[in-house]
Amino acid sequence: RAYNASSSEPSKLLFRQLFENESSTYTYLLADVAHPEKPALLIDPVDRTVERDLTLVKELGLKLIYAMNTHVHADHVTGTGLIKGKVPGVKSIISKASNSKADLPVEHGDKIYFGNLFLEVRATPGHTVGCLTYVTGDGPNQPQPRMAFTGDALLVRGCGRTDFQGGSSHQLYNSIHSQIFTLPKDTLVYPAHDYKGFTVTTVGEEVLYNPRLTKDEETFKNIMENLNLEYPKMIDVAVPANMVCGLQDLMKKPSEASPC
Amino acid sequence: RAYNASSSEPSKLLFRQLFENESSTYTYLLADVAHPEKPALLIDPVDRTVERDLTLVKELGLKLIYAMNTHVHADHVTGTGLIKGKVPGVKSIISKASNSKADLPVEHGDKIYFGNLFLEVRATPGHTVGCLTYVTGDGPNQPQPRMAFTGDALLVRGCGRTDFQGGSSHQLYNSIHSQIFTLPKDTLVYPAHDYKGFTVTTVGEEVLYNPRLTKDEETFKNIMENLNLEYPKMIDVAVPANMVCGLQDLMKKPSEASPC
Ligand SMILES: [Fe+2]
Ligand SMILES: [Fe+2]
Repeated sequence: RAYNASSSEPSKLLFRQLFENESSTYTYLLADVAHPEKPALLIDPVDRTVERDLTLVKELGLKLIYAMNTHVHADHVTGTGLIKGKVPGVKSIISKASNSKADLPVEHGDKIYFGNLFLEVRATPGHTVGCLTYVTGDGPNQPQPRMAFTGDALLVRGCGRTDFQGGSSHQLYNSIHSQIFTLPKDTLVYPAHDYKGFTVTTVGEEVLYNPRLTKDEETFKNIMENLNLEYPKMIDVAVPANMVCGLQDLMKKPSEASPC
Repeated sequence: RAYNASSSEPSKLLFRQLFENESSTYTYLLADVAHPEKPALLIDPVDRTVERDLTLVKELGLKLIYAMNTHVHADHVTGTGLIKGKVPGVKSIISKASNSKADLPVEHGDKIYFGNLFLEVRATPGHTVGCLTYVTGDGPNQPQPRMAFTGDALLVRGCGRTDFQGGSSHQLYNSIHSQIFTLPKDTLVYPAHDYKGFTVTTVGEEVLYNPRLTKDEETFKNIMENLNLEYPKMIDVAVPANMVCGLQDLMKKPSEASPC
């Protein structure tokens, strides 16, 4: 299933990584700047940095068409709802499995086109039930090496926690091994967070050096069960908000909520 | 003047941007991974993150040959000295004009080879007297688009302050216009700092949207004279330390200091 028609024009990826300091979240801007409309999308925008992101989109002359989330975040409020309010026509995207409101609920195997570039949707549950990894397309005129936006599934030398939001260490282990580690070794891995100042890694590096995922499944489960992490400060605000695209007023009247 | 011999082998850039949160400093790792020795260099390493950076260098199988600074930093202690202590054979690089100790004091027009890739040295004084911008080579098998490591001369939608360390707004204005804005528009600009979560910009973007450098020189000077910035917390520790590669014990006995 594709959300836009492909043509034979060449494509050219514009790519920007953006950081939100309070929640250590990475937001990604991608656009096909060879296409006359320069269609663009934002992955994991944060409410606090929406103005920064939209100013950049405007200065670069892009047409924002999608505001996407890899999953229902527990540590920050998504910028999706704010963006939809400010840029008419933008469609929100999240997984069907997340049980959240969105204009385009997607599932494993879907392709999301922006101009002549596309992202492949891969289901990578385990951190949450609805976690997706978005991977740049495989084919002519698609970026080489490929790029995987892994959300909180695979992080640089780490992975997302599995102790709430329907998390499962068994699922996460299998998601990463079957859906991410099977990508070409030079695939660039762009996570939703980093806390040590890394900006990117590769599949090849994580296969060799990820301290958790290089272990067998039983050891991995043990590690994940003994992290002793604190309950996330923002979870009780962020999760319900993010299930309706971060729009606080929609939250008050769920019956009136339209897809966000 | 070149610090290494070039050959006809193809080159392949490995590139990593790394962030140090306390001083909002970007460190850059570059290597020629097509060369059998995978020679690598670090630009603007920070003392606090040396272990992270050297672990990454090791995991990627690189041979670190240079630890370089764009200038004498006032906001953090360079990692150069620590790196030299931990990785024998690494040579430190800084500008001759900075009046600092280094194994290879460089100046405008020099080329710094790592494998078959090289950086061009451009003098861009104004933030400090010895500020350099390192630009990836122009020529076959060099990265396209080019990449400029501008230190604190040109920042994303900003520039370095000019009110201490021999700063001069007249010089900075002319350095940026003559040495950076003359590069191809698609040149990627990687600064030493960002405080808003931007990771990169381009020459074309800054020529159009930099709120300071798009002004005429008189207006620019006025802006720079009225920033009313605080005196940097770390300057009295960082500047003398960075003039001897951040090696604190060398500082105590300047007469015994060897190039660092
Ligand atoms: Fe998460
Ligand atoms: Fe500086």
